[in-house]
Amino acid sequence: MISFESDYICGAHPGVLERLVETNMVPVSGYGCDPFCHSAEEKIRAACQCPEAQVRFITGGTQTNQLVISTILTNYQGVVAARTGHVSTHEGGAIEYTGHKVLEIEGKDGKIAPDTLRGFLQTFWNDGNHEHMVEPGMVYISFPTEYGTLYTKKELTELYAICREYEIPLFIDGARLGYGLASSSCDLTLPELAQLCDVFYIGGTKVGALCGEAVVFTHNNVPKGWVTQQKQHGALLAKGRLIGVQFDALFTEGLYLEISRHAIRMAEQLKQLFLDKGYPLFLDSPTNQQFVILENTAMEELKKQVAFSFWEAYDETHTVVRFATSWSTKEEEIQLLADLL
Amino acid sequence: MISFESDYICGAHPGVLERLVETNMVPVSGYGCDPFCHSAEEKIRAACQCPEAQVRFITGGTQTNQLVISTILTNYQGVVAARTGHVSTHEGGAIEYTGHKVLEIEGKDGKIAPDTLRGFLQTFWNDGNHEHMVEPGMVYISFPTEYGTLYTKKELTELYAICREYEIPLFIDGARLGYGLASSSCDLTLPELAQLCDVFYIGGTKVGALCGEAVVFTHNNVPKGWVTQQKQHGALLAKGRLIGVQFDALFTEGLYLEISRHAIRMAEQLKQLFLDKGYPLFLDSPTNQQFVILENTAMEELKKQVAFSFWEAYDETHTVVRFATSWSTKEEEIQLLADLL
Amino acid sequence: MISFESDYICGAHPGVLERLVETNMVPVSGYGCDPFCHSAEEKIRAACQCPEAQVRFITGGTQTNQLVISTILTNYQGVVAARTGHVSTHEGGAIEYTGHKVLEIEGKDGKIAPDTLRGFLQTFWNDGNHEHMVEPGMVYISFPTEYGTLYTKKELTELYAICREYEIPLFIDGARLGYGLASSSCDLTLPELAQLCDVFYIGGTKVGALCGEAVVFTHNNVPKGWVTQQKQHGALLAKGRLIGVQFDALFTEGLYLEISRHAIRMAEQLKQLFLDKGYPLFLDSPTNQQFVILENTAMEELKKQVAFSFWEAYDETHTVVRFATSWSTKEEEIQLLADLL
Amino acid sequence: MISFESDYICGAHPGVLERLVETNMVPVSGYGCDPFCHSAEEKIRAACQCPEAQVRFITGGTQTNQLVISTILTNYQGVVAARTGHVSTHEGGAIEYTGHKVLEIEGKDGKIAPDTLRGFLQTFWNDGNHEHMVEPGMVYISFPTEYGTLYTKKELTELYAICREYEIPLFIDGARLGYGLASSSCDLTLPELAQLCDVFYIGGTKVGALCGEAVVFTHNNVPKGWVTQQKQHGALLAKGRLIGVQFDALFTEGLYLEISRHAIRMAEQLKQLFLDKGYPLFLDSPTNQQFVILENTAMEELKKQVAFSFWEAYDETHTVVRFATSWSTKEEEIQLLADLL
Repeated sequence: MISFESDYICGAHPGVLERLVETNMVPVSGYGCDPFCHSAEEKIRAACQCPEAQVRFITGGTQTNQLVISTILTNYQGVVAARTGHVSTHEGGAIEYTGHKVLEIEGKDGKIAPDTLRGFLQTFWNDGNHEHMVEPGMVYISFPTEYGTLYTKKELTELYAICREYEIPLFIDGARLGYGLASSSCDLTLPELAQLCDVFYIGGTKVGALCGEAVVFTHNNVPKGWVTQQKQHGALLAKGRLIGVQFDALFTEGLYLEISRHAIRMAEQLKQLFLDKGYPLFLDSPTNQQFVILENTAMEELKKQVAFSFWEAYDETHTVVRFATSWSTKEEEIQLLADLL
Repeated sequence: MISFESDYICGAHPGVLERLVETNMVPVSGYGCDPFCHSAEEKIRAACQCPEAQVRFITGGTQTNQLVISTILTNYQGVVAARTGHVSTHEGGAIEYTGHKVLEIEGKDGKIAPDTLRGFLQTFWNDGNHEHMVEPGMVYISFPTEYGTLYTKKELTELYAICREYEIPLFIDGARLGYGLASSSCDLTLPELAQLCDVFYIGGTKVGALCGEAVVFTHNNVPKGWVTQQKQHGALLAKGRLIGVQFDALFTEGLYLEISRHAIRMAEQLKQLFLDKGYPLFLDSPTNQQFVILENTAMEELKKQVAFSFWEAYDETHTVVRFATSWSTKEEEIQLLADLL
Repeated sequence: MISFESDYICGAHPGVLERLVETNMVPVSGYGCDPFCHSAEEKIRAACQCPEAQVRFITGGTQTNQLVISTILTNYQGVVAARTGHVSTHEGGAIEYTGHKVLEIEGKDGKIAPDTLRGFLQTFWNDGNHEHMVEPGMVYISFPTEYGTLYTKKELTELYAICREYEIPLFIDGARLGYGLASSSCDLTLPELAQLCDVFYIGGTKVGALCGEAVVFTHNNVPKGWVTQQKQHGALLAKGRLIGVQFDALFTEGLYLEISRHAIRMAEQLKQLFLDKGYPLFLDSPTNQQFVILENTAMEELKKQVAFSFWEAYDETHTVVRFATSWSTKEEEIQLLADLL
Repeated sequence: MISFESDYICGAHPGVLERLVETNMVPVSGYGCDPFCHSAEEKIRAACQCPEAQVRFITGGTQTNQLVISTILTNYQGVVAARTGHVSTHEGGAIEYTGHKVLEIEGKDGKIAPDTLRGFLQTFWNDGNHEHMVEPGMVYISFPTEYGTLYTKKELTELYAICREYEIPLFIDGARLGYGLASSSCDLTLPELAQLCDVFYIGGTKVGALCGEAVVFTHNNVPKGWVTQQKQHGALLAKGRLIGVQFDALFTEGLYLEISRHAIRMAEQLKQLFLDKGYPLFLDSPTNQQFVILENTAMEELKKQVAFSFWEAYDETHTVVRFATSWSTKEEEIQLLADLL
């Protein structure tokens, strides 16, 4: 059985695992106050060309979103997100659990259009009753989005300009950041992206780590009382080294982007395969998640030999499914799939 | 430099790490729906001799406490804990963050006396204004306690009887459970402990794992909507395997208790060393944390060559410090310390 | 200056105020345990023809929505509401503040269509990832809606049947309930409405009281620990009598419906006036709120002599404004407005 | 039957009720934006001799405590209070419900000693683990306390100096403020008290109003987004006038202090009566609540003709009970009680 079920089906990239093994018996202090975390922070700062950046390590994506959003917003503010945003739909209400509303606005293929954002903010501030409403206190976007799409440099520049104008921070969820940056459709570099937001995270769980995300506060803007708040959320690992060591490995000799590029190459082969075989794509994704429309009986047949994910019903007789590649995808697996289709 | 700073200074026990390496490239489903988690659950159930038990895996201790307590309590209830309990003092307000009060009562060396608990509950229910007060909805104890002490079988039996009488669950924080069960002063086995509470957790982070705790709901009593609530707390790992694999290793061929016993042997040597050298113990701890009173200048001197933890000021010229052993402590380190004292 | 600014511009209906004066010096117990509250509960139960109903008194509408919704939902559930619902937009995030998501769905003129509700619930339960999503735990509608519109008996019956099918409670926000029931377009009686939901509230603040709403749990279904939760929300008045006395007056000799009918007569005159004078209505409201489209300069002119509310921009040169009547509106005021238009 | 059950047994002081009746049909804007609220604010500012003060009106005491504390604290902070403080024990966990811990410290007869506060703050900031603990972010005291006792000017000055030193605000719960200021034991005036804290509230519910408390932010320090937060808590009355009118009446021609003095005179007669008749006082209260120790059978006998409150069990055969006076207590009632004792 071959699996394209998700980008978190295997453990860690061998280069990452190796570092965990090498450093295993080195005694260090807990809670992220260790040389591995410090080294990883330094390397990430360098990769972002952002000397003012502060980097914090969190175990997973939902936890990161919850922590970043709830520590930045004040009580009466909410976070603006696309209606299809991960924080809007697939985090079990993690943001609302902290007392904050997700102010959902319309998106297109997972992306927020600058005009939509500007219109929403203008309408809010022009509303005579806005004091009875949740104030938009930050903007959340994902890169790549939940549909695998990417913002262009121009779009991101515009979104950030609007945020600057309204004096609210822009937060980029980078759970699959590597797969975005490595896409041939991407016209942004990591340092550019770091310049165009106030905080973002570099996803590790889906890009080579066993677990862990690196949150980058781009201009010395870690919220006050961060450690206590991380603890308060149950998000402060005693063995902080676990994430530090992994990111240290991922940001040594460009491993993070290298393994991301591999996943993109695999995704491109996958896409070409679907096109060649006449399977319609649900949308044109430039990253590691490919969304294909399958006829239902064919889908059931395929399922017996390949793992992939249900995405949504397309019509009575067809279903949208997702095939994901990652650092661990092998070219042989694409070949095997080709034989099966 | 040798370190007795904590029981989380090293990575994973070699036997645990080895399993992570072996299973690394096996593709599995996410979010704990994988054969490693299932196998670990099965082994833990067997070790507890508790066929009705349900086991869930969480990344760390504070997160576990937060999740267990907030999913069990209803809105208007609080959790009873010793004033020195971890949830009362050292979790950054993680319980209150979920909207629940920690109802702090007096303890002795970290333990709640059955009479104190009974008195508290009686007073509450006899108070004519109790509807204006937070209702005690569960009881939290730690085993070993934050001071390294242990409940006897008799004490735990009494506490649980009181909880049964008042129809509130008893939750045991077992962040260092192994070091409690392995102590020569302990008259409880794991199956007995499982019979004497409604939910407890088996600490992994401090007993051989890179991270992870195994929560045991002893009688088929996982709260409804558990997965969603775990997600909502940011506590659902995409790669749930990470904790499953580790606990599977820890509960294979008795590794968990074996490495716990090693730590206890090291702690006993440490305690004997302090007694031999004339250093007064702050209290008589039967587990892996030893609390010693040091004269301040001697303490500063020692710090240059040995890592240990500040606990609290004793008087103007003395300090209570903590020396912790763990699975990773080596006999040579005790010897080196002996030379230094 | 005459005012149609809202339905809460004056104090209490004289009949209500008189009862407050009469009972002022009668000493009673606090927190709603007084004969006035008990009598009001009895009268409301009778008016609803609902002997199993339990009635609780709360100071205002947002507080009522917050309390009812948060005491009924469990942690991982949200409340389904129209995107234009009061709880969705105009309560400063009061529901999210309690940790629960408002699951917003499309409405039409403020109303949720039964098909929309059914579709939403079906899609949720058919989604393979629904455990990662907020579970719909109750449905909120308002009667009349925020746009002054009304559900028909048929629509309400269908909505409630869907709720029964999915085993989730239906909650009706009746901040302006009287103005709905008194409308000539309404084909529902109070007892019928009480049969078609699990909990609703009878608005007092906007229908003759100084403050206060009466929540009716229709079938002995007050949430457990209600008093403590009311206290916990800061919603338990020491002088509970204040609301009890007022509702006792409002439900004596049909005062509540009588004064509601007056407001509706005034609203009908108002509507006719606008139609006669050629002012287009924004929508056809059958209740006490009338939404009119005014040309902007005419609007500014009118504002100098009449108070009304901004609702929303219509186009570059026109604005939607709201004129509200209430128990306190006088026929002379309509006449004065007629002269001004 | 005569009643000393509480200080909220009757409606409003006649002078307050009269103003409600007089102003009843004056149409005004909602949500506190009315001339009555503005006038009341102005009069309170003058009475406090505090031109920089901002005054906000809230319905009840618990709601006020919840709102003030949660809008001032940041996420990771808690409020320091006496273990017997109202927020610690008798508000159903209203503070914790907003996510904040009440940091309970020892008091004496309801009061926090300056040395206790200083010791607590010092210990916290000297603790090497304080980042894992809830940071003390403000101090809550009540005046009079829950035991009817009063801080002296010297004590309050010291407490406030400590708060200034640690840069945390001091909040005074004045649910019974009038009865404190009117006590013959009180050496503080209202303007002095306003100088010695950052925020306090003037209780109306227990001192002549139907409901309502006036929060005074003493130096232009209303938290940002106050209106939205008040709405978010369900604490923004549509008819804000209800509280504005009442406080306007209470602060006209010294009514507030005048009726407070009456209650104190009644309390002094009550105390003398108990002493004369040989009933031991539980403590020596200088305000309107008197705590007496009654033999249990005598207590049951008395209960048949007089209403008073259970306070706590004293010993097997005696009970501490509370007799409260208020603006509505009549001298004849004291006389009647004297005959009964």
